[in-house]
This record gives sequence, structure tokens and C-alpha cells, in this order.
Amino acid sequence: MDSLSISSTQNPRIKHLMALQQKAQLRRSEQQIVVEGAREVLHCINAGFKVITIFYSPEIFDISALPRSNCELIKVTTQVYEKIAYRGSTEGVIAIVKPKQVTLADIELGSDPLIVVLEGVEKPGNIGAVLRSADAAHATAVIVCDPLTDLYNPNLIRSSIGAIFTVPCVACTSAQCIQFLKEKKINILTAQLQDSEPYYNTPMREATAIVMGTEATGLTQAWRQAATAHIRIPMQGSLDSLNVSVSTAILLFEAVRQRLT
Amino acid sequence: MDSLSISSTQNPRIKHLMALQQKAQLRRSEQQIVVEGAREVLHCINAGFKVITIFYSPEIFDISALPRSNCELIKVTTQVYEKIAYRGSTEGVIAIVKPKQVTLADIELGSDPLIVVLEGVEKPGNIGAVLRSADAAHATAVIVCDPLTDLYNPNLIRSSIGAIFTVPCVACTSAQCIQFLKEKKINILTAQLQDSEPYYNTPMREATAIVMGTEATGLTQAWRQAATAHIRIPMQGSLDSLNVSVSTAILLFEAVRQRLT
Repeated sequence: MDSLSISSTQNPRIKHLMALQQKAQLRRSEQQIVVEGAREVLHCINAGFKVITIFYSPEIFDISALPRSNCELIKVTTQVYEKIAYRGSTEGVIAIVKPKQVTLADIELGSDPLIVVLEGVEKPGNIGAVLRSADAAHATAVIVCDPLTDLYNPNLIRSSIGAIFTVPCVACTSAQCIQFLKEKKINILTAQLQDSEPYYNTPMREATAIVMGTEATGLTQAWRQAATAHIRIPMQGSLDSLNVSVSTAILLFEAVRQRLT
Repeated sequence: MDSLSISSTQNPRIKHLMALQQKAQLRRSEQQIVVEGAREVLHCINAGFKVITIFYSPEIFDISALPRSNCELIKVTTQVYEKIAYRGSTEGVIAIVKPKQVTLADIELGSDPLIVVLEGVEKPGNIGAVLRSADAAHATAVIVCDPLTDLYNPNLIRSSIGAIFTVPCVACTSAQCIQFLKEKKINILTAQLQDSEPYYNTPMREATAIVMGTEATGLTQAWRQAATAHIRIPMQGSLDSLNVSVSTAILLFEAVRQRLT
């Protein structure tokens, strides 16, 4: 079967794609998300997400690089591709995908899970970066509490380089998350500067959740009170601040170190 | 003395500022750099850099928040400020500053220095993020080998949140850097996936340089051969990749952990 070819940016399919890219509300109501980039689309397919449509520029992207699937393929001209590419990427491929709604109950905890919890972290790029590190540390899940962005924000997908598809990622309230962690007997380690121990003195071999707040205001009282232990990264410089995704990675890989040595 | 007030974006002083922001060549020839943001300007002043001019919007920024200095103060209208702000920032202050040219010989090594070396890292945002972590770990210096960007790129300054002023930062060739580290008997730990040990098995208490290549191609042969030890962060996920600034932070804080425990 020949695939559809589009050479006009006014084509209704192109307009629909661009609306999905821009409007979280439309992504929710249609249950469709947009995935851009060769790596990202590949990880999405490999993780078993249902791909609805793939738009690609045959001059830039070799469609045979992707596993065969039953989705609709639409060729677009390079000019159309440049219009729909979110950040002037030159990778030549964008997919419309059905998101998975993962809930706390869906998380397969296994033995000694290692979970990242983000409370109120605002920037999609930071959440994406945390997901990327969580993939590398083989974390069990990332739980985003009281999210200020939708988990399928294009910037979040992009900065995760596809880890949003490889790491189970759940959005819920802080209250739901605290109840879940307590029920499952998972140690709650809250990152905070006050009343805390250096992170490397805290055992992380058993079931552990590392809980991070925003760079500006830190964690809410509910999390501080729910904590098994309060941990901090000793700050020795003049700026007194690390990026939240960097802090999370340092703590995650301390857990990896303890578990592997 | 009343300070100058500017209300037109066509003012030659405003045009000169914008040219400095955009042109690395002009920054080099005039030996002037542009520093934007309240934190960044404050760190720059505190670190003893010579500030030439401060542009500020009195409606947004309280100039009395900065230490007194002899530099020229220029008030601008909010409309002009919005034009000169590099990324729509709302902090209301931008300074023109004389850069410091730091060389390898200027680095104060002290005892058991901890140095970060970046080879060929391209994105200013990644170098800035490394500087921010280097500040938090109180690293001795960051050395950027064979740089593809100038160290006072506005994006680099911004993503360092001012750490470019608090951490000694040197640009040189890889050959110069290798010779320097060997002369000073500083252990060279190269981050690489092949022929390497997990980083946490490698001693980092003594004089240590952590050497990072690009995410795409890794380190050149010259660095691999110059190494005291090859180290890797064990990758346990499906993506096989960490952001270079995240990897650097994990390795730096392992050195901190070893030195503090």
C-alpha cells in the first residue's frame, strides 16, 4: 500500500498534528500525544506504545530504520517537515501515539524497588532529564506529584530522549503517593537541607523512594513528616544550589553504588 | 550623580550591548562580556570581576541589592529592557563586564585538587551546568579543552547561574592540559565505556582530574592513553546514555563522598 504524501502546510492532517503539539487540552481529550525524533519514536515503539500515525520526510529519515508496524505512514516534503518539527530538528520523523495511563497500582515493584518522587517540579525539561537518569539507574518508577505540566509535554518527551517510554511514570497527588509508599513499606528519603544527614550515610539497599522538591521552595511539610530519613547533598560552593535533575542523579547513583558494592 | 536614562531601543549604547550579546568576535576584540540576571551579576561582582556598565529597569530591579561599585549605571525603560533581555527574563539587570583570562598557570592547586576536564563538549548549556555542579562540589577548576564555544557565551553564563565567576575556568588544548596534569602529578580518570572500571571502585581522594568527552563520540585516543585509570558509570537502562553534565556531577560527588567519609 502506498503511503499518503503531503506537500502543503495547510493540509488538515498537518494542522491537526500542530494543534496536538501545542495544546495539552487537545492531547487529553483525543488521547493522542506527539513524539518527535528518531530515538524517541524507536523507544516508544519498542516499549509497546500504540503508534497511530508516523509523519516522515523521506529525504531526511529512512523509514526502514523503524520496526514494521500497522500504523499509518505519511510522507511529507522537507518544507512541511520544517514547519512541524518542534525545535528545528533534522531527524525527519514525528509520530502520533496513544499514551498509556499508568497508575500507582500498575507499578511492578519487584524486590527492593528504587523510586524517584518529584513534588511540584515545574519545568518539563527537568522532569525529562530525571527520567533519563532514572532509566540509566534502572529505577523502578518515577512518580510526579501534583504535576504542573502534563507528562506528555513535547519538551518533556524530548529532554527524556525517550525515557518517558522506558521508565514507568505516574502522576498523582502527594497524599496518594505517601499512602502508597507507606502501604508498600518503601523507605521515604526526602532531600532537604535542614535536619538532614549526608546522603551517603543513609542506607538505600532496601525499598527506597528518593523524594525531591523544587529548587526554589523544596518539599512541603507533608513529605518532610512522612519521611523515613532526611538526606542532603553537602553543598561546598558559593552558589548553594544544584539543578534538581543533577541532584536526583547523584542520589539515584548512590543507591546504585550501594546496591552493586 | 544621576545615572543615564535610556528609553529608546535605537540608542547606540543599547545597540552596542545587543551586538556584544550576539557576537563572540566582538566580545573578544573589545574584551567585554555580557552578564544577565540578578544572581549572575551579584556573583560576578563578588568574585572581583571589573564591571563596566550596569543596565537596569528600576521598575523590575532594585539596584541597591547590589554592592556599591564605581561602574556606570544606566536606567532603561521596561520596554527597552524587554528588548535587551536574552531570554525574556524578568530580573531587570544586565551588566557589561571585563572577562578574566585564566590560564593553567593561574590555577591554585592547593592539596589534592579536584579538577574537571571537558574535551570537545559543544553545548554552552552543558558546560554551564558542569560549572554549577563544580561549584557545589567545590572543585578546584574546570578546564575546557579544544572548546567549540567561548567561555563567556551568554547561554553558558546563564546555565551556570554565575558559577563561571566562582569556579576557575580555563580554555586550552588537550595537549597542553595533559602535559599540565602530568607535570602536576594529578591522576587522570577518563570516563569511557570500554576497558573501564565502575567509578566507585576508583580512588579519588588524591589529586584527581575527571575527564569527560562528548555524549556522541566520547574521548579522543590522546586522553585514553594519558589516563591513570579508565572509569565508567554502569548503565543499567535501555537508553545507554546520560547527559554529560549529569555524568560529571555523579563522578564529582563520588570524589566528594570519598573525601568526606
